[in-house]
Amino acid sequence: MPNPSLCAPSRARVFTETERQSLYDVIFNRRDVRNEFKPDPIDPAALDRVLRAAHAAPSVGLSQPWNFILIRDPARRARIKRAFTRANDEAAAMFPENRRSDYAALKLEGIEKAPLSICVTCDRTRGGKVVLGRTHNQDMDLYSTVCAVQNLWLAARAEGIGMGWVSIFHEQDVKDILNLPEHVTVVAYLCLGYVDALFDRPELAARGWATEDDLASVVMQETWAG
Amino acid sequence: MPNPSLCAPSRARVFTETERQSLYDVIFNRRDVRNEFKPDPIDPAALDRVLRAAHAAPSVGLSQPWNFILIRDPARRARIKRAFTRANDEAAAMFPENRRSDYAALKLEGIEKAPLSICVTCDRTRGGKVVLGRTHNQDMDLYSTVCAVQNLWLAARAEGIGMGWVSIFHEQDVKDILNLPEHVTVVAYLCLGYVDALFDRPELAARGWATEDDLASVVMQETWAG
Repeated sequence: MPNPSLCAPSRARVFTETERQSLYDVIFNRRDVRNEFKPDPIDPAALDRVLRAAHAAPSVGLSQPWNFILIRDPARRARIKRAFTRANDEAAAMFPENRRSDYAALKLEGIEKAPLSICVTCDRTRGGKVVLGRTHNQDMDLYSTVCAVQNLWLAARAEGIGMGWVSIFHEQDVKDILNLPEHVTVVAYLCLGYVDALFDRPELAARGWATEDDLASVVMQETWAG
Repeated sequence: MPNPSLCAPSRARVFTETERQSLYDVIFNRRDVRNEFKPDPIDPAALDRVLRAAHAAPSVGLSQPWNFILIRDPARRARIKRAFTRANDEAAAMFPENRRSDYAALKLEGIEKAPLSICVTCDRTRGGKVVLGRTHNQDMDLYSTVCAVQNLWLAARAEGIGMGWVSIFHEQDVKDILNLPEHVTVVAYLCLGYVDALFDRPELAARGWATEDDLASVVMQETWAG
């Protein structure tokens, strides 16, 4: 390893209150978008910035286990949409009868409407057989990949690009359509496109499907329920 | 459900280039901190903002499956530290012999040095038996919780608070120390404290343990390796 004396922290960047507020405004104005996508193609420079933000996410043992598969081909997106529809029909049947029509009325994806899809995958073999930080929790590589998704989401929002995360698939359907090898897991299928309008709170709350909890109800002191 | 005509998106917040740059500066200056923590207690108003940012993360079916357990008691943190040490000794032995002394030389946690720990958990039963968006991927609640961790991390950084994610534990040890019920999973054990100095790139890269990949090596077109 390098000489430790050459390897030291330096003065940390300090953020002003205005800069902090910009971050909070992005975080609180981020939405899971299903229907507000405009058809305009995404500016390549903006897409590059968004992907760089994703790639700057923390990763266990610096393994950077993610890949970003950019999908624009309408025929391929139509196949993905069919895979969604098959799974979503099954999903609807899982809900109690009194919620099924409400469920069916929700639009849960923008696969064909949004001009760009990004499949974010996790290579379970990246970094070798023993990865620092993954020795006792094998899922840490999946968690790293989700950190990249959240960075991507916030960066997209700041660029005026809405994003929706679609999770209602049989994973193998997506793997087949994208030719993913066995050792690669689909973590997120994302739909991206410019947006002019967004819900001012989570759409599932606005539509009465679910309610939001207060922060106070999820903070505990020292131990569970403490 | 409410009348759909009362339930519509409104004009989306537009971010300026300066505001975007603030977000990118936070993202690129975020570090996994192990040793730079100062002992000063965290300002309660800053902690509240950071937790609100975490709680504003996306969650599958708006289930908000996370809890944030704030741990300050030195005796409890000492027990957590012992659980880490037990696991870390096992971890060291998993690496090839030629990497073991390098591994042992790395400081991988700030459990006792940082004044605040936050255990971020996921309640696997939150939202009921069938959760929208979790019907085909049962891990989506864990992924939602990781999105909250990443929001928390970025908000902390913007507040001048460093954060480190410790993952080298037997989960049951942490569950025992924090009295977590069976149905609650430990997603992240986080150490937080103010920082003046940080590494200017990932510490594992600065120390020669791992190398960073270029963005280009992880972006693909249309299909795997496409």
